[in-house]
Amino acid sequence: MPRRHMAFQLGCIVCDKLHDSSKYRLFCENCGGLLDITYDLNPVLNPSMVKGTCSMERYLSTLPINDPKNLVTLGEGDTPVIELPAVGQSLGLTSLYGKMEYFNPTGSFKDRGNAVQVSVLKEAGVTEVADITGGNGGLSFAAYCARAGINCHGFTNLKDPISPKLQAILLHGVNVHWTEGFRNEVEETSVKFARSIGAVSMMYSSNIYFIEGLKPIAYEIGAQMDPLPDHIVAPASNGSILQGLWRGFKEMLEDGRVERIPRLHAVQTEQVQPIVAAYSGRSWKRPDYVDSVATGVLGGSPPRLNDLIRLIKGTDGRAIAVDEDRIIFWQARLASLEGIFVEPTSAIALGALEKLIESNVISAHETVLVPFTAYGGKEPIPGVRP
Amino acid sequence: MPRRHMAFQLGCIVCDKLHDSSKYRLFCENCGGLLDITYDLNPVLNPSMVKGTCSMERYLSTLPINDPKNLVTLGEGDTPVIELPAVGQSLGLTSLYGKMEYFNPTGSFKDRGNAVQVSVLKEAGVTEVADITGGNGGLSFAAYCARAGINCHGFTNLKDPISPKLQAILLHGVNVHWTEGFRNEVEETSVKFARSIGAVSMMYSSNIYFIEGLKPIAYEIGAQMDPLPDHIVAPASNGSILQGLWRGFKEMLEDGRVERIPRLHAVQTEQVQPIVAAYSGRSWKRPDYVDSVATGVLGGSPPRLNDLIRLIKGTDGRAIAVDEDRIIFWQARLASLEGIFVEPTSAIALGALEKLIESNVISAHETVLVPFTAYGGKEPIPGVRP
Repeated sequence: MPRRHMAFQLGCIVCDKLHDSSKYRLFCENCGGLLDITYDLNPVLNPSMVKGTCSMERYLSTLPINDPKNLVTLGEGDTPVIELPAVGQSLGLTSLYGKMEYFNPTGSFKDRGNAVQVSVLKEAGVTEVADITGGNGGLSFAAYCARAGINCHGFTNLKDPISPKLQAILLHGVNVHWTEGFRNEVEETSVKFARSIGAVSMMYSSNIYFIEGLKPIAYEIGAQMDPLPDHIVAPASNGSILQGLWRGFKEMLEDGRVERIPRLHAVQTEQVQPIVAAYSGRSWKRPDYVDSVATGVLGGSPPRLNDLIRLIKGTDGRAIAVDEDRIIFWQARLASLEGIFVEPTSAIALGALEKLIESNVISAHETVLVPFTAYGGKEPIPGVRP
Repeated sequence: MPRRHMAFQLGCIVCDKLHDSSKYRLFCENCGGLLDITYDLNPVLNPSMVKGTCSMERYLSTLPINDPKNLVTLGEGDTPVIELPAVGQSLGLTSLYGKMEYFNPTGSFKDRGNAVQVSVLKEAGVTEVADITGGNGGLSFAAYCARAGINCHGFTNLKDPISPKLQAILLHGVNVHWTEGFRNEVEETSVKFARSIGAVSMMYSSNIYFIEGLKPIAYEIGAQMDPLPDHIVAPASNGSILQGLWRGFKEMLEDGRVERIPRLHAVQTEQVQPIVAAYSGRSWKRPDYVDSVATGVLGGSPPRLNDLIRLIKGTDGRAIAVDEDRIIFWQARLASLEGIFVEPTSAIALGALEKLIESNVISAHETVLVPFTAYGGKEPIPGVRP
């Protein structure tokens, strides 16, 4: 029997306090800890889910949205999985696949998280929001706020000339506030501004709704690949893709729909590697000067670091850092061998894959999936003369 | 019973001479006329087509590819149809939809045509090709040639600084030849070069394989929208989308799968409007100086103009020219009202829609579909400070 979507609860990951889930909320009102979502009933991925016009509609029962009429969608999700025979052969792998996450409305996987995130804002009756902006996440959020009719304030320290992404963000109608300072200072300014005008701070790095919106990547892989891949190798800044994948696969495992969870590997740059350090038990401090081509994985302080390390180790995954030369190399190699043009941030996964094969963590006959997280045409290409 | 794909024939549209379809061929060997493809059996869109991992695989029986192993795919097609309630309301329409053609591998509908086109090249054993390059078509062709392992020469008159599209084309491994002269002169240089080294000239504007590759847009609309839209309003340079739609719907009509073909409207700019002129029986000459934001519809001499006028009139469609201000206006309005960011070339369709409503060709209760042909982030945005 088709089952309606589940009620869900917002619980603090530190003190376990439960909160009213009809309000948009990011932190525990008791201790300030991050929140997690638990569903009252174990979500069941039943056959009724294969209907519906988009991925979010089909998987609505596992998402923190109560009423389907509040869905804010631009047609995200349902990205194809395609084989990568030439890159696979060059690495000595027989079964290498890409999940084409840049075939999303604004050209990155962020659209999945923001579709859920903005649906929750709409359901909570929020009409004005603020956050840092300027990257793939900000562009995606701008598009979904426009779609939902939510007034958006975006804070950035990016200087002239206005980047192509910021131009698009302006076109989507975001009120852009140019601000001085490092990223964390810009975020503080945004939070203060939001408080001063009674707007909601989106803060997607801390945002559990955003992570929940990435679970359908796992459900789709479950439908597209049989057997499941042995390994998934993904870029990680806050690690939201890995958290979404793990949550999605775990539901399917509890549900009996899959028999195992693929090994989940996190990839960072050598310059910014808090996850790699924590995985190895090393301490890590962000360098004063960072200049990496992988602009999407330079966050430096993942809010759910413990969860991440637990899921990586729990699936027997690894955390790998890749140097700049290999990132640039793999961006070009993927474009010339397979016709796939991704951002350097996406290409780091192939650099890590190379290392995982060299160190025998991945062997030739195993099946590997790489999510291609963002389109390459939204920022300059390193190594190509402008 | 599932039916295998059909044999097909290449016939001249001028003198009717038939040619060997196992060779890649664009022009009649007898009179030099353009070629058309006819299938020996009326293609049947049977239920076996709903299987397969991508649109091209499902619809293979209606495409000019003999052996599925020659398919060159990057996961193109299967783009969503989404409602546009805010733009619809602002125009007084109750049912306005967008077909999200920029959710394709290189961000434009060209990927569908090139997927078929390059599959045919692969099937014919072609290993080296030449064509003009630099736009969406060139970028898409570059990606598919990389995927197929075909060596590609691209000719362009675009000057420094290298545009983002051309940077991506270089990354895909195209041998770019910088050439002087107008577009037609660049094309001539490309053809001469190809002849001198024994490479094949792709010439996608004259290319029947490319047009055939657009038919699945119609098949997908047939599966996604019931009833079919009353109107489809599409940008037209060579008019390949309209020709693909018409061919696809005509097959479905002959097959009894649909009862009518939507009215097909062609949209051009005021500066370059050969189709609009021919539709009205006016003569038209390309101005010496063209400076339009709609860079994708400035071809000026559609090779299959008569076919185009016949299909537009045959479906009771119109041909409409839109001025620059309305193009820029609609690009911004679509981005701010719906969160959809397209190229100016795609936005012209909304300018035409406005006119079609004003002139009562389209009425409030009718269903309208607009194909959003290319992503906005691949070229500068007019009206936004860089």
